[in-house]
Amino acid sequence: MASVCIIGSGNWGSAIAKIVGANAKKQSSFADRVTMYVYEEIIDGRKLTEIINETHENVKYLPGHKIPANVIAIPDVVEAAKDADILIFVVPHQFIQRICNTLQGKIKSTTVGLSLIKGFDKKEGGGIELISHIISRQLQIPVSVLMGANLASEVADEMFCETTIGCKDKTIAPLLRDLIQTSYFRVVVVEDVDSVECCGALKNIVACGAGFVDGLGLGDNTKAAVIRLGLMEIIKFVGVFYPGGKLATFFESCGVADLITTCYGGRNRKVSEAFVKTGKSIETLEKEMLKGQKLQGPFTAEEVNYMLKSKNMEGGFPLFTAIHRICIGELKPTDLIDCIRNHPEHM
Amino acid sequence: MASVCIIGSGNWGSAIAKIVGANAKKQSSFADRVTMYVYEEIIDGRKLTEIINETHENVKYLPGHKIPANVIAIPDVVEAAKDADILIFVVPHQFIQRICNTLQGKIKSTTVGLSLIKGFDKKEGGGIELISHIISRQLQIPVSVLMGANLASEVADEMFCETTIGCKDKTIAPLLRDLIQTSYFRVVVVEDVDSVECCGALKNIVACGAGFVDGLGLGDNTKAAVIRLGLMEIIKFVGVFYPGGKLATFFESCGVADLITTCYGGRNRKVSEAFVKTGKSIETLEKEMLKGQKLQGPFTAEEVNYMLKSKNMEGGFPLFTAIHRICIGELKPTDLIDCIRNHPEHM
Repeated sequence: MASVCIIGSGNWGSAIAKIVGANAKKQSSFADRVTMYVYEEIIDGRKLTEIINETHENVKYLPGHKIPANVIAIPDVVEAAKDADILIFVVPHQFIQRICNTLQGKIKSTTVGLSLIKGFDKKEGGGIELISHIISRQLQIPVSVLMGANLASEVADEMFCETTIGCKDKTIAPLLRDLIQTSYFRVVVVEDVDSVECCGALKNIVACGAGFVDGLGLGDNTKAAVIRLGLMEIIKFVGVFYPGGKLATFFESCGVADLITTCYGGRNRKVSEAFVKTGKSIETLEKEMLKGQKLQGPFTAEEVNYMLKSKNMEGGFPLFTAIHRICIGELKPTDLIDCIRNHPEHM
Repeated sequence: MASVCIIGSGNWGSAIAKIVGANAKKQSSFADRVTMYVYEEIIDGRKLTEIINETHENVKYLPGHKIPANVIAIPDVVEAAKDADILIFVVPHQFIQRICNTLQGKIKSTTVGLSLIKGFDKKEGGGIELISHIISRQLQIPVSVLMGANLASEVADEMFCETTIGCKDKTIAPLLRDLIQTSYFRVVVVEDVDSVECCGALKNIVACGAGFVDGLGLGDNTKAAVIRLGLMEIIKFVGVFYPGGKLATFFESCGVADLITTCYGGRNRKVSEAFVKTGKSIETLEKEMLKGQKLQGPFTAEEVNYMLKSKNMEGGFPLFTAIHRICIGELKPTDLIDCIRNHPEHM
């Protein structure tokens, strides 16, 4: 019987806790009790962990949804994780290093990880690193990933969708699938872990490009071209920096499906559209539209550009490069199309 | 010097005439004079061919845009085509058989074709056939195809987009690319002709599914899942009935890009949404929303279903099958999701 711990309790963490809690209770291969690490906050004078454990609702991050009673909120991450056979990571990516530092040497040696965190993080000594690689290196455990067209609120509402699990180990894959799959949340497992994770991070850059197109009023054909060229640059980026993946992985939910959703809905698209229409800086718009939260796309574009520039490869990724330069004000949004007219794809 | 004839003068035909006329005039490898077969109509007492040849505007099908003066409208298809080295076919697909019958034996034996026509047609003796195969068989010429996320009005407005040419012959491909490519209309040539053409036809089925999801209010995740599963069924369909293609072709403009545009804009999506919301039949909605024009998606879904059923393969294509059965009233739109919950992709 595998014990499961969910590290994180935001919107997406709470939605996944609904699924994982129900599956663990129903299936004999999992221990009933699922722990959930909750960063303690005081809500109207009460501790959030107490509220969750008594009302079974995360009133701050997923109000209106019941989390199964077998999911136990715990404010101490070591306490939550120490007996787990499966650790599910679903915290904002800026917290992952600190959490790994705290957990080092305090989890079971046989534990396996599953990361739901999208994005890269800075690497010590320069460059960028995938989140699952950071977890794996620091905790010395194998880490799989889960990515897809999965807006948390719709998953919590039990609306039909698909997701992709990237898992190298064929003995672990069925267990992860059983833990995650429901009649409305359909899982496809692929072995190509790095490709899956890169899709989750890089799509936000493309969504900025889609938002610029919307802001400029360039129409459906142009938007489709920008999304497609973005997908081609994602595929190329993975081929260069994380080689060995399969082309078919990009047809999974983590690839085309998540890219589409992000480029039509999604806040990166929305803020980028406003960036063009208002002429305000990304920073100003983050304050006005996101209560100061950092927008993922421009940030990832900068990290990726840092890598491309250092390897003299900007020319091979004209869309990623143009989006970055527009975000930092080096180019005007109206320059976008001229930057991709002679895209390597058209040679 | 290659002579070019455009067979067709609707919205898309006129938009492509703008491009082809300008390229032919500019490049020494093409004869200046481009002929365009125009089905003769009387507009306010004047012949449409006369209006086009005098005002250089197709006032009925592409008003507000100038067609280059070297494009000559001709009301007789044999007269228009007889000296052509390149024949561009861009008529509604129900006219193609008759036009081919008329042209048989009356064109140069060395002529090559380029078809912009999306859809299948019924095959004599049962089954369905790709339009390019019909042209090729009847006229005994090689036929390439051009498909992509190319809304005609946006192409006429010279807004940036991409397109895909499928061409098997490496000596012809550069000529077709030179004839079509401009600074705003970017061409990628692939060898995989049948895959390109199938994408153009089958996307309309998927767009109906996307419209049902919109009509049911199922949200972004579900819509992304339906579009993705549709793409997987397109790929599978091509693999079964037109094997030998490359997976990469589905990442071209004819594939993901056109599919996205069709599932977010496009009339198949729109009418299918209304189908769910109003409860009216497709036929009634065609009368009300399309002035009696036939909607491509339900029609193609029926043709495809006929083939799948005869080969006992409906189970392998649950989305295509469900969409067809919903269109003809055998299933309710609300049944859609139950039909794809256990999709072969999730096995």
